[in-house]
Amino acid sequence: MEQITLEALNKADQKTFTAAIGEVMELAPWVAEQTYAMRPFGSIAALYAAMTDAVRSAGNQHQRALIDGHPDLAGKAAREGKLTADSTAEQAGAGLDRLSDAYRKKFGMPFIVCVRRHGKDSILREFERRLENDPAEERTTALNEIFRIAALRLDQRVAGQDRLKVHGHLSTHVLDTHGGLPAEGVAIELCEIAANGGSRTLKHAVTNADGRTDKPLFTGTPIPIATYELRFAVAAYFASRGVPMSDPPFLGVVPIRFAVAEPEGRYHVPLSVTPWAYSTYRGS
Amino acid sequence: MEQITLEALNKADQKTFTAAIGEVMELAPWVAEQTYAMRPFGSIAALYAAMTDAVRSAGNQHQRALIDGHPDLAGKAAREGKLTADSTAEQAGAGLDRLSDAYRKKFGMPFIVCVRRHGKDSILREFERRLENDPAEERTTALNEIFRIAALRLDQRVAGQDRLKVHGHLSTHVLDTHGGLPAEGVAIELCEIAANGGSRTLKHAVTNADGRTDKPLFTGTPIPIATYELRFAVAAYFASRGVPMSDPPFLGVVPIRFAVAEPEGRYHVPLSVTPWAYSTYRGS
Amino acid sequence: MEQITLEALNKADQKTFTAAIGEVMELAPWVAEQTYAMRPFGSIAALYAAMTDAVRSAGNQHQRALIDGHPDLAGKAAREGKLTADSTAEQAGAGLDRLSDAYRKKFGMPFIVCVRRHGKDSILREFERRLENDPAEERTTALNEIFRIAALRLDQRVAGQDRLKVHGHLSTHVLDTHGGLPAEGVAIELCEIAANGGSRTLKHAVTNADGRTDKPLFTGTPIPIATYELRFAVAAYFASRGVPMSDPPFLGVVPIRFAVAEPEGRYHVPLSVTPWAYSTYRGS
Amino acid sequence: MEQITLEALNKADQKTFTAAIGEVMELAPWVAEQTYAMRPFGSIAALYAAMTDAVRSAGNQHQRALIDGHPDLAGKAAREGKLTADSTAEQAGAGLDRLSDAYRKKFGMPFIVCVRRHGKDSILREFERRLENDPAEERTTALNEIFRIAALRLDQRVAGQDRLKVHGHLSTHVLDTHGGLPAEGVAIELCEIAANGGSRTLKHAVTNADGRTDKPLFTGTPIPIATYELRFAVAAYFASRGVPMSDPPFLGVVPIRFAVAEPEGRYHVPLSVTPWAYSTYRGS
Repeated sequence: MEQITLEALNKADQKTFTAAIGEVMELAPWVAEQTYAMRPFGSIAALYAAMTDAVRSAGNQHQRALIDGHPDLAGKAAREGKLTADSTAEQAGAGLDRLSDAYRKKFGMPFIVCVRRHGKDSILREFERRLENDPAEERTTALNEIFRIAALRLDQRVAGQDRLKVHGHLSTHVLDTHGGLPAEGVAIELCEIAANGGSRTLKHAVTNADGRTDKPLFTGTPIPIATYELRFAVAAYFASRGVPMSDPPFLGVVPIRFAVAEPEGRYHVPLSVTPWAYSTYRGS
Repeated sequence: MEQITLEALNKADQKTFTAAIGEVMELAPWVAEQTYAMRPFGSIAALYAAMTDAVRSAGNQHQRALIDGHPDLAGKAAREGKLTADSTAEQAGAGLDRLSDAYRKKFGMPFIVCVRRHGKDSILREFERRLENDPAEERTTALNEIFRIAALRLDQRVAGQDRLKVHGHLSTHVLDTHGGLPAEGVAIELCEIAANGGSRTLKHAVTNADGRTDKPLFTGTPIPIATYELRFAVAAYFASRGVPMSDPPFLGVVPIRFAVAEPEGRYHVPLSVTPWAYSTYRGS
Repeated sequence: MEQITLEALNKADQKTFTAAIGEVMELAPWVAEQTYAMRPFGSIAALYAAMTDAVRSAGNQHQRALIDGHPDLAGKAAREGKLTADSTAEQAGAGLDRLSDAYRKKFGMPFIVCVRRHGKDSILREFERRLENDPAEERTTALNEIFRIAALRLDQRVAGQDRLKVHGHLSTHVLDTHGGLPAEGVAIELCEIAANGGSRTLKHAVTNADGRTDKPLFTGTPIPIATYELRFAVAAYFASRGVPMSDPPFLGVVPIRFAVAEPEGRYHVPLSVTPWAYSTYRGS
Repeated sequence: MEQITLEALNKADQKTFTAAIGEVMELAPWVAEQTYAMRPFGSIAALYAAMTDAVRSAGNQHQRALIDGHPDLAGKAAREGKLTADSTAEQAGAGLDRLSDAYRKKFGMPFIVCVRRHGKDSILREFERRLENDPAEERTTALNEIFRIAALRLDQRVAGQDRLKVHGHLSTHVLDTHGGLPAEGVAIELCEIAANGGSRTLKHAVTNADGRTDKPLFTGTPIPIATYELRFAVAAYFASRGVPMSDPPFLGVVPIRFAVAEPEGRYHVPLSVTPWAYSTYRGS
């Protein structure tokens, strides 16, 4: 998708303006139209605030239409490719259908969630949690999810000096406390761990001379709320340095399992390791 | 099986003596018979030394008969229930058959290994490693494995002041470095991890007021050479103490994966943990 | 001092009884006399409870006489050799005189504290803290200190199946996480650290093959409330094992500084160390 | 001192050139004069290499004159204010005089050392170590020290795209693994520790919201080879956050003692801490 600068957007005529950001709020170009009148915007944050304010101050009917304009989750999830890959997903899908029916029966509207902020298990948990809400709370929750979706879209479509806080950051660092230096050449695997224990590889990386990966493991997107496992091939690393170890090595592949709760948070999950001991912590 | 005391054994007539320990060396009651002449024994270690010396100083032919008297590994493994449980085992079994043929072809004798000292993957590794031996080395290796089997049997059959060093020890300890006290009530699972990543639960335990399990995780037997994982339910523990955590908690279940290389070794694998950090090491 | 067994005490005549434990409460043999009537005692704890109950249920006048029978702290401290050794002590002594006067002026009684439970700085802190009490609170506090002194004396004089909880325990353990084994031969120094930063060596020890000291650093006495420092000569240890280090070594002597707040507590303060990293925690 | 850019130096006439960098080699403007002929220099590193090459390829006599042109260490150390501050320094000074005489007697030249790369104890150690050299080795060592001094001077006098590797870097970072966040507001003291245990405060700092100090503890200069202690006021930090602790707190001020062996190295010495446990390591 082509990006437009905030500067260009500020100078655009209404048609161009709406063409550029009309779809930030699903099927609700009226939001962009109302926002148009409030140009110019000093920052993307100001533009985003104007759009969400327009929705908040619109009447009940408009808000309701905005909500109803969203596809229900099953469709959405399918479109994002989240819930179709394997039999686990099928079960999850089955759960979703059931929950989706229960939700629509209780609230009379589609279940809306910013899917990019959640792993599979987290979506099901959200569903169950929100089914407990009363209708007024849930309406607010649904609008907030729409705003989160809008923020991600706006971040993609408009370039400016500032960026919306929609991105998480996950990084690691391996310190060899046997040799007293950054561990270079450690193979790392990042997996997502399902509630049933299943594991899906997301990424492979190798540490550089600083003991870091050349790129963060996540950056520029939300980190889906989920459980992850980092796996560090430490025996291969120490073997490559000629460090004496038992056979098989006491530590072969070190797994560090942790959950992300804030998709827009900074997570630094380092490993300090010898062939006989290790430690980790949540840094930032 | 009934035990006999070393004292009783020292006073026994030859028939009783051989009945008691004749099967310590598979199908070779002559070893017990020769050993009988050397009574009394001051310790079980002395009795064991006398039996292994008898084999070492027996001629080639006797040693060869002792080796040939052992079932091949496939049968033995089956008898110990090691290699029959699931499809992984079938594959392992298939590998074993192939290796067993190759071994007999090269060395002309059955493959003997003290199965209680190895996990599945380790037996296959031993097989592959020993296939590289030259015949003289391999004969010595086979006798040593017979001695290990004999030591375990002797340890079961005869009670005395001393014990043979045939037992490993695996323990853990959970320290809550958030609260500054031993972590009581932490659920722990001990699993064996197969080379293909599969996991088999061996034991469940819960920490007591000292942060320890009431009994060691392994004691009184060799610890099979294998990769293990200890899983500590730390989020449930901290929740029970009312400690604030993210949702989902950063650390839910902490896995510590390690390999045992010395079946008769002492392995203490503790966990020091807060909701945000942990460390472990091999202690003893 | 000679010990008497609880059994003998239970059978003793009154004169012997009072001779044995009459001085447990300073200048108040009437406590032992009243307690005599309640024999036999099933445990030392029961004997101790009987003695403290006798004081608690004695009238105001008796309690007051018991308190007044104690020397003021300056004399007591001098007798215990606590506050006379060096110029720091002289200053502390000067502070004590001033506080002692203030205390007697406010409460009209001598300042009583179980000196063996406190380091120098802690006594001064106690003094300042207790000067804030109201007279009723302070009377209770003074009696409790008398009971603590009595417990320590009783523990010395009478032997039985049980022991009063008057002893602390301080131990350490050095784990070499570079080599993956207990660190043997590490020289350790235990110091008391004064508020002004001064340091007084209390003990030297060397770790054994288990990485522990042959005897605990404190046991069988209260650990005075104070700040301590354990100093571990780790560079000498790693040098003795031929481990490569920088020159000078990154870690030469590792100091671990901690305070004891519970004189009757268990403090285990271990060190896990490589030439480049270390960690410690309060264990028990 | 005024700086000149490498660009300006490349275009300068000989007089200006020599005025700018003639004193980089003590009392040896001939080095700058010879170097002048080799302009232009693509980098400061190239200029430095040209100067040191000029010395290396100069005859024995010139080298000897360069060495003799240096003041002996006592004078130099006095000029740098290193060895005059207190009685310890006087003793060190006394040691220096004795060593200085011994050195001149053995080698017939002044003892030259790049003083900014050493703490007091390290200078004495260097002296003793170098007294063991044979004359040829020691001549090379003396020239290398002159080159180190020259590099520091050149780095001050000439600005360019590159910088000579004459600067060390010391930083720290405090992580609160009780709360799972960077520790903000921790008071830190950096001290130099003398061989006799004495301590001299070099710097005070407080951690910011990232758990770091606003500026590195050392940067832009060599870090003198010496033993240092970082002292972290952790009890005050946890108290400010309302974290429950014992009284007195188990950890009050945490000292981390380490030595710097490479004055031009990167030393990151972080602290991960709860009220009951901590760890540190050499990072970079």
